[in-house]
Amino acid sequence: MRNIKMTIEYDGGRYLGWQRLGDSDKTIQGKIENILSVMTGTKIEIIGSGRTDAGAHAKGQVANFKTTSNMDLAEMQDYLIRYLPRDIVVKELEEVPERFHARYHAAAKKYSYHVWNAAVPSAFGYHYSYLYPGHLDVDRMNEACSKLVGTHDFIGFSSLKKSKKSTVRTINEITIQREGNLLHFAFVGEGFLYNMVRIMMGTILEIGAGTMEPDYIDAIFESGIRSDAGMTVPSQGLFLDEVYYKSSEMR
Amino acid sequence: MRNIKMTIEYDGGRYLGWQRLGDSDKTIQGKIENILSVMTGTKIEIIGSGRTDAGAHAKGQVANFKTTSNMDLAEMQDYLIRYLPRDIVVKELEEVPERFHARYHAAAKKYSYHVWNAAVPSAFGYHYSYLYPGHLDVDRMNEACSKLVGTHDFIGFSSLKKSKKSTVRTINEITIQREGNLLHFAFVGEGFLYNMVRIMMGTILEIGAGTMEPDYIDAIFESGIRSDAGMTVPSQGLFLDEVYYKSSEMR
Repeated sequence: MRNIKMTIEYDGGRYLGWQRLGDSDKTIQGKIENILSVMTGTKIEIIGSGRTDAGAHAKGQVANFKTTSNMDLAEMQDYLIRYLPRDIVVKELEEVPERFHARYHAAAKKYSYHVWNAAVPSAFGYHYSYLYPGHLDVDRMNEACSKLVGTHDFIGFSSLKKSKKSTVRTINEITIQREGNLLHFAFVGEGFLYNMVRIMMGTILEIGAGTMEPDYIDAIFESGIRSDAGMTVPSQGLFLDEVYYKSSEMR
Repeated sequence: MRNIKMTIEYDGGRYLGWQRLGDSDKTIQGKIENILSVMTGTKIEIIGSGRTDAGAHAKGQVANFKTTSNMDLAEMQDYLIRYLPRDIVVKELEEVPERFHARYHAAAKKYSYHVWNAAVPSAFGYHYSYLYPGHLDVDRMNEACSKLVGTHDFIGFSSLKKSKKSTVRTINEITIQREGNLLHFAFVGEGFLYNMVRIMMGTILEIGAGTMEPDYIDAIFESGIRSDAGMTVPSQGLFLDEVYYKSSEMR
């Protein structure tokens, strides 16, 4: 049995998110599974590194699937590029050991979030960013980010109801870069709870706008209460940039 | 009578081009005229610097209109941003002398064309570029561009049937830049014939691909025959970046 790892880029604007929903044709996973099933002549299920929200994008989602097909990887990629919609692109295919599992073995992920920070919106890529016209103080936002980095219980930054599973996660790095009117936030962490990036972003923006103090991050960690944190920013600005695996899992 | 100059950015993907077609709601000019007419309470006609093709984009189209309205410019811009579709943005409004005419007074224009030059397409912005997966030799393309620069009869690079008007135009500069997989071609000239940028681009790509020699540009100038030149590349990669006016027209 071959195990094949895919690196996938998608514009999520037209989709209900990554995860297949019944027979719906409106999910990224569903679209890819349908094409792979036709390609191989057997029903294929793929395992993604994790879900992405309706409307969110990916530059490097990872998924794997098992098959007995003997098509070579270049042929498979050509087929996928030809038959997938143009907003879903399989950028890379790689043969991996049979035990490789795109979700269980994901060691870390990088997400980014784009904010268009100007009074006048952009006619281009408005579905790839969140329009925030007000002033944002980058020093204050950096202070907030440095408080988020580290190992914490992120339950207050999640849409999860109280969970029996641990809600402790580790964030390795958060960076902020400005390119013209576009603010680019990047989050690298070992794991993220449901909606965690979008709620951290909403909180960082309130701190940047001055309606919340950077110290308040500590209070949210202490209370663990979702409503203490900022809004859940829209999914259209969110990108799953990269999924990291230990090289030992790939050999 | 006030005369107001607008600088407009649009994603042309959903439209039939700049120029109003009867009552159609599917042109950029039509959309803007409708909103301005509601805003001022009188029928407004706008004069664009020139047409753009169905599917082509603009980062800096210029148009002007006359009105007796006494709304201030900031109020007008807020109104336009609020009521225009999100893919049409009026970036700037300026009060100009009554004689200013966006088409007659345009001294030069800058267009750009985007080519995604990689075997694997991009899931993002595929409606903002033309996918050309083959090898392109930038030195050969630069040689072609240097032959296009200058004052020539461009009838062979146009979709015009034989014209009584002059088809002599002057191109000031053509530059090529690569950013990752994206090739960015910029054309500055005093005027362009119908489809001229797209036909020059198709010819430059054939030269870059090696199916045509750079010298062949001279032959197309000599023959003036459209079919001697390259294909008309798709409009989705074309942007009207900027329209230049003499400062004496603005005072």
